[in-house]
Amino acid sequence: MIGRMQIRPQQGPAQPADSVALLPGHQGEITDKRLLRGARTRQIVLCQAVDIASLDGLEAVSFGRLATATGISKAGVQTLFRTKEALQLTAVGYARELFTEAVVAPARLVAHGVARLRALIENWIVYVERPLFAGGCFWVANLADYDSRPGPIRDALKHQQQEWTTLLAAELRHAVTAKEIRELDVELAAFQIDAVLRATNTALRMGDDDAVVRAHRIVDGILVPLPRE
Amino acid sequence: MIGRMQIRPQQGPAQPADSVALLPGHQGEITDKRLLRGARTRQIVLCQAVDIASLDGLEAVSFGRLATATGISKAGVQTLFRTKEALQLTAVGYARELFTEAVVAPARLVAHGVARLRALIENWIVYVERPLFAGGCFWVANLADYDSRPGPIRDALKHQQQEWTTLLAAELRHAVTAKEIRELDVELAAFQIDAVLRATNTALRMGDDDAVVRAHRIVDGILVPLPRE
Repeated sequence: MIGRMQIRPQQGPAQPADSVALLPGHQGEITDKRLLRGARTRQIVLCQAVDIASLDGLEAVSFGRLATATGISKAGVQTLFRTKEALQLTAVGYARELFTEAVVAPARLVAHGVARLRALIENWIVYVERPLFAGGCFWVANLADYDSRPGPIRDALKHQQQEWTTLLAAELRHAVTAKEIRELDVELAAFQIDAVLRATNTALRMGDDDAVVRAHRIVDGILVPLPRE
Repeated sequence: MIGRMQIRPQQGPAQPADSVALLPGHQGEITDKRLLRGARTRQIVLCQAVDIASLDGLEAVSFGRLATATGISKAGVQTLFRTKEALQLTAVGYARELFTEAVVAPARLVAHGVARLRALIENWIVYVERPLFAGGCFWVANLADYDSRPGPIRDALKHQQQEWTTLLAAELRHAVTAKEIRELDVELAAFQIDAVLRATNTALRMGDDDAVVRAHRIVDGILVPLPRE
């Protein structure tokens, strides 16, 4: 798994765009630099935003708090994201990107079925153990806050959550079809594995040292191997 | 299950004892009325506090917000609870009381083992379906916020969470000892059932109509009956 610090871009300066436009030099080069600087600033803000959201929830992700956290002016942050909801939704999308790179992408290198399922689960546990986000699982932290608040943020979180359980179900189906494990209801098992992982995240956050071993034992109980013929 | 307004217990006095002692007149009667009024005010505030905490988290439980929600002056609320943390901790204790009365107490009327376990699970599902607290499960909502914040609030939430899984484990042990279900690791199964219930709470909040049927099917998969000899 690639560490988050490694995939983070270089932290650039937080100069307002206008001051750049006044500089002399080749126009094309300046535009490229401006775009690059804008992209960097955006990423610095989003890195802070996902950490704040994992610790204190997406409600705490505001222009003011991000300005304090990054040293970029509040107006600068606002220029990049326009509204608080747009900022929150972009942070939700960015969290998904980081999750995909850390948990899903490395598992794609492994064969379908039990092997990939185990890789996904193992990467997920590392994702909350290390953790990728300061407050542990981004979705556990935010679904608890947004599950009672209909709107685009809840929709985005729900959609991402479903993508994850759908992925688990697909690998369970591969495992059943290949007769690697005994027949089971793949949707039910995917829900169950996800529920156990989410509870493991909370247990780990609260210092429960047995959490990881327990999660593996429960998964072993679900993935019962079929004896080879 | 008894409705929330009916099961609310009487609370203790809110006025400092010294000010009561200074009052003229029929000492006993006035003291009783004042005590009663203090207790009522306290309960009105706590009822709002647990709802707010279940929706927006315990951080949102403040003197100002409760004053607005109840119509009681901010100073009045502050006199009752003194500090924000004391108010939050009292709300956590009150949530536990309501939970016990709605979920645990009715199940005590049922025989130990599978019957009581099923009653606990059924009452728990009703507790989040109805729901007892406006935002669904109080602990799902607040553990997600406090799992990364060590302190007395996290300790209280963690302790209550453990009480619940310990209760589930004890009934599972009864069921195994009485040979009602096949042998299993009761702590592991209790963790698993709790994880599924918590995930069911979130699924219900997000409008997943299959959530309850799924929860029952997963529980059925864990509580495998032993054939009678």
